[in-house]
Amino acid sequence: MTYCLAIALDEGLVFTSDSRTNAGVDQISTYSKMRTFGVDGARQFVLLMAGNLATTQSVVTQLERDIWERAPESLLTVRDMNEAAEYLGKISVSQQTKNTGGGATYEASFILGGQISSRKPMIMMIYPQGNYITTSEDTPFLQIGESKYGKPILDRILTPTTSLDSAAVCALVSMDSTMRSNIIVGPPIELLIYRKDSLSLDERLRLTEDHPYLRELKKSWDSLIKQAFRQLPPINLAKAKGDPSADIHSASSA
Amino acid sequence: MTYCLAIALDEGLVFTSDSRTNAGVDQISTYSKMRTFGVDGARQFVLLMAGNLATTQSVVTQLERDIWERAPESLLTVRDMNEAAEYLGKISVSQQTKNTGGGATYEASFILGGQISSRKPMIMMIYPQGNYITTSEDTPFLQIGESKYGKPILDRILTPTTSLDSAAVCALVSMDSTMRSNIIVGPPIELLIYRKDSLSLDERLRLTEDHPYLRELKKSWDSLIKQAFRQLPPINLAKAKGDPSADIHSASSA
Repeated sequence: MTYCLAIALDEGLVFTSDSRTNAGVDQISTYSKMRTFGVDGARQFVLLMAGNLATTQSVVTQLERDIWERAPESLLTVRDMNEAAEYLGKISVSQQTKNTGGGATYEASFILGGQISSRKPMIMMIYPQGNYITTSEDTPFLQIGESKYGKPILDRILTPTTSLDSAAVCALVSMDSTMRSNIIVGPPIELLIYRKDSLSLDERLRLTEDHPYLRELKKSWDSLIKQAFRQLPPINLAKAKGDPSADIHSASSA
Repeated sequence: MTYCLAIALDEGLVFTSDSRTNAGVDQISTYSKMRTFGVDGARQFVLLMAGNLATTQSVVTQLERDIWERAPESLLTVRDMNEAAEYLGKISVSQQTKNTGGGATYEASFILGGQISSRKPMIMMIYPQGNYITTSEDTPFLQIGESKYGKPILDRILTPTTSLDSAAVCALVSMDSTMRSNIIVGPPIELLIYRKDSLSLDERLRLTEDHPYLRELKKSWDSLIKQAFRQLPPINLAKAKGDPSADIHSASSA
């Protein structure tokens, strides 16, 4: 399984992905699920991927081949992020349909984000069917893979005006919650920050399980959550005896 | 969709469930997903259910019929919680197989918890296939339905020694996170506390959306989480430039 997340902010884009790949419990390996493409100063793309590994690898190969062979359509020729997502959707569908049979699923999902010259940086999620969506003011993030465990913290914290550094911390907390609850999402964690209009991708991190920041973040978040939980209004359930709509605030908080 | 949760603690059992039922977006209704059975002073059962509404209703009807008709096997005759779970599994499978065709899924999952005389209180999760599992020291809770959004907080907080009141608060936080991230899980929330060896079920609450405790809990948790988030070690991503394994603690926290 996989967990990938991208966030679109006024200041730029944040991407994160785990690295665990499995094909059955005895075939667990580590693969990066984050690839980058682009030309410094002109255009930059970050690709996150989830789903069948053979499909995602063949999609990446095709993206690279189209660039090297200067194909009429490639990530270097598309005019905007929508065209980029449509191009990626086409390649994804064609690679999925090449692989059929055997009862396996060859589906793959992608998040493609980036900026083309002075246009607005954007992130898009490309479904296995090849169609795609982008973000909104209310939902400035997109997720693929094992996305539910890590969604509540994003819903609470992220808005388009969140800073890149805060959003990166939030992304790592979301990843940490997912790894804690689901063993088939695992480190190293990759984290990439794209600053709007920089047209370069040099802020990229690979956080292994024992990276000092990741270790401190996990420990802090766990103790902060426990501390927050202890500050919640206490409940007095005995008050509910015989009255299912009783007010159950405990005396000490009334 | 549905979210139901049961927790087994040294002090007793905690059950919670939402009440939203949908069969397509224009057919949203409110149904309780919590039923109780028992004889005060002798044995008590709490049933939580998720899945096809026709199946869960017909299972409940059968459980009740077996009790009224004094069938050779019913919740009043089973010797222990394992036998109760096995009996429920059989009924669930037989009701599911009665309903077939039309391309719909008739699957249902159940959590059955309770205590029979002086035996240990237990909770069991019954899969659509009729088999079942119970809890462990490390995982003192069971979930059915839309369980992922609300799992991280349970993983962090619950142990068998957690008090009933704390576990009830934790259950409501888990429910709140689920409702926030998934619109098809919704109030009223039912909450039931079973105190070990009481053999009675009189602490039951029905929390509508505007219940004063639920409202305060939602507000407090949201602000406590935001406050906790602000206390996390800040990150300085510019430090990662060109060094993917750089320590990214911001100067202020070093």
